[in-house]
Amino acid sequence: MGAKIRIGIAGYGNLGKGVESAVGASEDMELAAIFTRRPGDLLPGGQGVRVVAAEEAEKYVDDIDVMILCLGSAADLPTLGPRYAGLFNTVDSYDNHGQVSQYFTAMDRAARRGGKTSAVCLGWDPGLFSLIRALLAAMLPAGTTETFWGPGVSLGHSDALKRVAGVKAGIQYTLPIPDAVAAARRGEGPLRPEEKHRRQCYVALEEGGDKEAIAAAIKSLPDYFQGYNTTVDFVDEGELSRRKGDMGHGGFVLRAGHVEGRRQVAEFSLKLASNPEFTGAVLAAYARAVFRLNRRGETGAKTVLDVPVKYLLGGSHAAETAAIKSFL
Amino acid sequence: MGAKIRIGIAGYGNLGKGVESAVGASEDMELAAIFTRRPGDLLPGGQGVRVVAAEEAEKYVDDIDVMILCLGSAADLPTLGPRYAGLFNTVDSYDNHGQVSQYFTAMDRAARRGGKTSAVCLGWDPGLFSLIRALLAAMLPAGTTETFWGPGVSLGHSDALKRVAGVKAGIQYTLPIPDAVAAARRGEGPLRPEEKHRRQCYVALEEGGDKEAIAAAIKSLPDYFQGYNTTVDFVDEGELSRRKGDMGHGGFVLRAGHVEGRRQVAEFSLKLASNPEFTGAVLAAYARAVFRLNRRGETGAKTVLDVPVKYLLGGSHAAETAAIKSFL
Repeated sequence: MGAKIRIGIAGYGNLGKGVESAVGASEDMELAAIFTRRPGDLLPGGQGVRVVAAEEAEKYVDDIDVMILCLGSAADLPTLGPRYAGLFNTVDSYDNHGQVSQYFTAMDRAARRGGKTSAVCLGWDPGLFSLIRALLAAMLPAGTTETFWGPGVSLGHSDALKRVAGVKAGIQYTLPIPDAVAAARRGEGPLRPEEKHRRQCYVALEEGGDKEAIAAAIKSLPDYFQGYNTTVDFVDEGELSRRKGDMGHGGFVLRAGHVEGRRQVAEFSLKLASNPEFTGAVLAAYARAVFRLNRRGETGAKTVLDVPVKYLLGGSHAAETAAIKSFL
Repeated sequence: MGAKIRIGIAGYGNLGKGVESAVGASEDMELAAIFTRRPGDLLPGGQGVRVVAAEEAEKYVDDIDVMILCLGSAADLPTLGPRYAGLFNTVDSYDNHGQVSQYFTAMDRAARRGGKTSAVCLGWDPGLFSLIRALLAAMLPAGTTETFWGPGVSLGHSDALKRVAGVKAGIQYTLPIPDAVAAARRGEGPLRPEEKHRRQCYVALEEGGDKEAIAAAIKSLPDYFQGYNTTVDFVDEGELSRRKGDMGHGGFVLRAGHVEGRRQVAEFSLKLASNPEFTGAVLAAYARAVFRLNRRGETGAKTVLDVPVKYLLGGSHAAETAAIKSFL
């Protein structure tokens, strides 16, 4: 086995910590440095990890093989992503489904200009679920695919609760509707998101809040709850903070194909105890892949559909060959 | 969109027919010819399909872009596979898990010598399930993977029933054991195949056969039934032939990962109405991929772990790019 792959982590929230633990568990990787906008505040989990101010990153181009971008999709990745991609091989978990094209193009351009490789949009969805959707569309070409999310907490919807006057804090669970799952298995579709999911909210109120009015306001919030079967339960802040400790999530992809009137069904389900830990492991695996792709001269942006799965597997080349055989 | 991919089918049993229907349903492919050892007997489903004696295949090297090998793994592929691989881009469903290394090496050598590309060991297992096992091992690196087969008919075990004196014909269903599935979800393992599956046999007897002695002989057949929870039911030939019309099968891959003592579970399940139709569609999708890989100069043998999923998707390059975005 050659030298270890030198990993940089940009951003040190829950995801950055998940990546740190995944890199620590990978024998073929070492954590070279963590880059953060608040280097003074930061206490990495591992001993002796170098902490660097994000604006100094450019000085480390020769010390980092792959920079793992643990930054938010809304504010940070659209601007910082291409900046990093021009300097380093990168991987990221950009997850704004509607803006993927623009993001991919910006990352591709920056990476090609720098002779680097960037794997984008990784995690469970987009990411693993995207790969499963494409695979099943190719293998069961006549059919319909439905993706269900949950049961699990949606951070975006939890945040949206606070927009309603009188709400102190809240948490929102996305729950698949069993009848819709059954319909998808029968190949009935396409189903709209609000036909497939219901939304369960737990909300703590400001003093004197009017429960009935607040529940009604939540249920009519456009883009988030309007049109959904939404339940609002009022709880105290203690229960809310206990629930916020749960970072589990999950979902499944279901494809109902048909051959001569008969159904063939493929289902892929994921139950995650910790979404950041899982996404961290996915980013670490793809860091290994972009390192190898870049060495082969394959520069530019890549999605899960571009990367051969063998490049995700750890170990030496000999171990890798043996491992491949073990999967067949 | 350029010219269509010209497909040859070598072998015209159930699988060959499945491939024929998959190629017929693919707008970017055309069936150029079927190669068979019994050209006189053969009536292809489509109109105007050329039927050629297998020994004439060599004359068609300029007319076929990809030869889809619909031949048996036991007797035919080990010898005929490399012969075809030296002349054509090929795909096949070689499924003898224990001999994969030798087969891969022989196909790789032949394909490289001919400047061709061969995708090997395709179908649901090995094939799709192999890809899922590798993907989950990379993404949930701490954990255990278990594969369950069934409920469905095992052709090998059905054939083995006839080795027992007094058995006229039989059919064998492989059935996952629910307690073992639950144990696998809890991350308990590794589990032996006989802990995970039970075997249900339906048998028609020769006249005067001794049911008790025959059931005992079946249950003690080494390599097939010994050590398994095996049930033998005696039925008439009518019921047997009705059951033989059912080519459904299925199975699932389950990975129980763990993060800091908590479990994360991924499951992939497949319920097939027709195993040959599904395998035919998989072979057609990989035919598209080897055609593209060969054009890029990537010669030699490839497994599911080597092939980027985007190469499986049909349509023009523009349609492909749009499709990729739609999966993310």
